[in-house]
Amino acid sequence: MSRRGLFSEERSAEVVVDSFGDGTGPRLREILSSLVTHLHAFVKEVQLTDEEWRVGVDFLTATGQSCNDVRQEFILLSDVLGVSTLVETINHRALDDTTEQTVLGPFHMVESPDRELGANIALDGGGEQCLVTGRVTGPEGTPLAGATVDVWQANADGFYDVQQPAIQPHRNLRGLFRTDEDGRFWFRTIVPRFYPIPDDGPVGVLLERTGRHPNRPAHMHFIVAAEGYQPVTTHLFVDDSAYLDSDVVFGVKESLIRQFVVIDDPDRAAKLEFDSPYRAVHFDVTLSQEGERMVASS
Amino acid sequence: MSRRGLFSEERSAEVVVDSFGDGTGPRLREILSSLVTHLHAFVKEVQLTDEEWRVGVDFLTATGQSCNDVRQEFILLSDVLGVSTLVETINHRALDDTTEQTVLGPFHMVESPDRELGANIALDGGGEQCLVTGRVTGPEGTPLAGATVDVWQANADGFYDVQQPAIQPHRNLRGLFRTDEDGRFWFRTIVPRFYPIPDDGPVGVLLERTGRHPNRPAHMHFIVAAEGYQPVTTHLFVDDSAYLDSDVVFGVKESLIRQFVVIDDPDRAAKLEFDSPYRAVHFDVTLSQEGERMVASS
Repeated sequence: MSRRGLFSEERSAEVVVDSFGDGTGPRLREILSSLVTHLHAFVKEVQLTDEEWRVGVDFLTATGQSCNDVRQEFILLSDVLGVSTLVETINHRALDDTTEQTVLGPFHMVESPDRELGANIALDGGGEQCLVTGRVTGPEGTPLAGATVDVWQANADGFYDVQQPAIQPHRNLRGLFRTDEDGRFWFRTIVPRFYPIPDDGPVGVLLERTGRHPNRPAHMHFIVAAEGYQPVTTHLFVDDSAYLDSDVVFGVKESLIRQFVVIDDPDRAAKLEFDSPYRAVHFDVTLSQEGERMVASS
Repeated sequence: MSRRGLFSEERSAEVVVDSFGDGTGPRLREILSSLVTHLHAFVKEVQLTDEEWRVGVDFLTATGQSCNDVRQEFILLSDVLGVSTLVETINHRALDDTTEQTVLGPFHMVESPDRELGANIALDGGGEQCLVTGRVTGPEGTPLAGATVDVWQANADGFYDVQQPAIQPHRNLRGLFRTDEDGRFWFRTIVPRFYPIPDDGPVGVLLERTGRHPNRPAHMHFIVAAEGYQPVTTHLFVDDSAYLDSDVVFGVKESLIRQFVVIDDPDRAAKLEFDSPYRAVHFDVTLSQEGERMVASS
């Protein structure tokens, strides 16, 4: 006698996949079949021991139990294993000449306040003063007037306003700008600092055990949108930041790194109400037209 | 310029694996490298969308948050995906002529009470009366006297004593026996019933969405041990049980299924203080000598 559903080491993944009933949606079946196949292949490849399996179960349990209203440890785990960036990349492949996307991150949790072009979004005074300029265009260089440029960043100590509600001014280092008739935007801020992701939970232990630091290199977040175009969620990275080669969440893309030039010119500084020297960076953003984005390659 | 640590879709898993530092233990590195490689391959294979990634994060989070002192939802998840049985199988491959191992399960949480051979472990009266006989031997048929036979099972309603502490007698359907000088054991009990694993959490939703029932076929648990031999943790399955072809945790092995014969003989029944007809099953257990077990095949 041979029973169809019985487990065997050789056919282990197939047996599990075969257990999915007729009512299983086709996409769920596709996802779970691939997941189970890879999961079983992993267990066999490393010949996972009982004890290692138990450590894995305990780790996943602790990760789930670390989640609360203000912390999502499974997203952190996905981030530090490169899964978040991979999913982001697969789903938002940029056309050759458009600005690359990168992860949204967990700090776009409040609406950025409307600001006039040129406004200073650094309300807490610390850090190196910095002028940000740029232009939003379509793929052929068409300037996009009235595009929205949503910006948020950490302060000179590496914290977002929402992490320090008692210390930082309300909506510090956030702004929603609209480009002028020539597609240009500009604003004043400070150079952001690198910062660690929360590393006092299970993911922190994983980083420590694998000899990794918990830091993200210095960056400003941007969401740029214009009618008739695909919006882009991206970062502008500071080219002399620490950790640019080892972003803990693998969010850095070469095309998003810019030099923050030191400008030692008291006159120009005075016009900006800056001290001299200050820093300046230029970041052009190219959007693709709606429907133009690549959906899949590979 | 090209930065070594930067993420790319093509090299995504390599980039993550390369981030592990020198301090990473060699076994941890081996496990995580394989895990990350399979995880990234899975994401690419199914082209996981942002929304599907979020559903996955939410599912894992809910699974972690369902765990408490008396429930381990991640073990359940591992069980229903066949991972627990796979790990068990890999780590406890039986030699050709020895009894196969299967999963321990979550209900061996209290010590079984010492019982005399022949004792009736069914203290709650329900169910079909059943005589269990068997013999513990070494690989060449050598009878093993004084071997311990630890037995536990569900009652006729499909519940273990620890699940119904207010209803079932203390240590109902549990017993620790010692084989006689001829290696034999025997005891009286009832035929166990199939039962569902807890299906009111995230794992239950997964089963429902994949058209699977939550049941395990009827079985008795055994841990058999003798000095100088490898102990075996296994089940004895009831051959006419429902769900034998579709155990939700994939624990059934062909070699562990036995007929529970109906005996319609008032005289033999009377000697056992049973009603007639009753059921009888024979289950021989063969242990391998210490050090004899296969550690790996693949």
